[in-house]
Amino acid sequence: MAGTLYGIGLGPGDPELITLKAARLIASCPVIAYPALAGRESLARSIAAGLIAPGAREIAMEVPMTPERAPAQAAYDAGAHRIAAALDAGDDVACLCEGDPFFYGSFMYLHARLAPRFTCEIVPGVTSLNACAALARLPLAARNERITILPGPLPRAELESRIEGAETVAIMKVGRHLAKIRDVVDGLGLLERAVYVERASLPQERVMPLRDAPDPAPYFSMILLAKGADPWL
Amino acid sequence: MAGTLYGIGLGPGDPELITLKAARLIASCPVIAYPALAGRESLARSIAAGLIAPGAREIAMEVPMTPERAPAQAAYDAGAHRIAAALDAGDDVACLCEGDPFFYGSFMYLHARLAPRFTCEIVPGVTSLNACAALARLPLAARNERITILPGPLPRAELESRIEGAETVAIMKVGRHLAKIRDVVDGLGLLERAVYVERASLPQERVMPLRDAPDPAPYFSMILLAKGADPWL
Repeated sequence: MAGTLYGIGLGPGDPELITLKAARLIASCPVIAYPALAGRESLARSIAAGLIAPGAREIAMEVPMTPERAPAQAAYDAGAHRIAAALDAGDDVACLCEGDPFFYGSFMYLHARLAPRFTCEIVPGVTSLNACAALARLPLAARNERITILPGPLPRAELESRIEGAETVAIMKVGRHLAKIRDVVDGLGLLERAVYVERASLPQERVMPLRDAPDPAPYFSMILLAKGADPWL
Repeated sequence: MAGTLYGIGLGPGDPELITLKAARLIASCPVIAYPALAGRESLARSIAAGLIAPGAREIAMEVPMTPERAPAQAAYDAGAHRIAAALDAGDDVACLCEGDPFFYGSFMYLHARLAPRFTCEIVPGVTSLNACAALARLPLAARNERITILPGPLPRAELESRIEGAETVAIMKVGRHLAKIRDVVDGLGLLERAVYVERASLPQERVMPLRDAPDPAPYFSMILLAKGADPWL
């Protein structure tokens, strides 16, 4: 009988923000799979390191960060092939994902390749969005407020039109797009309201006004435009 | 010396989706505070029940569900007053919140009242949004896709304009607004793409096409309009 594939959200980086369910599955699965940027230590593996059983077999997927999609597609094809072999052999596989598996996570590419053939369970995780709001002390939304989540690489004009008329806005994947985003936010007259958060829940976490944020920013950074919700209910 | 106030996200309902950090704090805090709908068992307390220390003191805040805001405001005022007394006496207080404390959570009302006076830490939690996507097997967003989160009680015209032109849409707090939302989604030609999710991560969880969803829906239900992201990367 084939094994089960678990897509496991690890949360934003602090190993203590792993859920009890994720911790149990990581400790008990005989095979642990995870992505790694080519040539670097896997962040996902480092978050879960203290939970992986000593005898577990590991499947590291080296994913190249290129503008073209074909190299990463090939990496996920190869990773899915190795995971499928473990599942076919009857082993359960825990696939580690930073944050939540279905929230800008890499697991969805494995899910698309493997879920049609194998039993699959998704274990949701704490997202960087919630970790950033917690660190910045900014309630995201209350009552009937709306939230808009935008990736920083979007073109300037689209960022502008999406931020305008929105309530709470979170801009993910800031990185080298910081200057463009700051310029758009400033142009909309919202700079004083904008908060920059970096590596929330990791030891190097930082929060500051967007005005003072470093350019370029690290990849794991976010900008929050929140009114702090409606504090008195 | 005054105690610390912890705003603790419990996740969507499955006690195993509590984080290791939340579990540690719930087990070690001498005072546990939580909201409860008037006359009902507290859902937050029921999620955390297995972790609360036998000798812990409990502060239950009965929050009335009324269209007027003053009765709930008064309930949070009274709750904040009792929590402040415990903090002033030097006790740490764990305030339990379903989901994430700053994502449509009630904790923000206590935070607004108490954070100016006391040391406060927010422990982010898994949201119902991520639990619903996991259950429905719907990736929310990949790469440069946008996510829009809308509360179901919004007026029909606003729902319509916000859904139009959006990519992934999550509609929270569906409840008695189901018929209105279904009508709007149908009018936009999106009914076949819409998934209804109820009580994700609880034993009674259900997922089905929006077309077949019950009207009225329970309060803990959500509608997802997701393309399932871009599965091949």
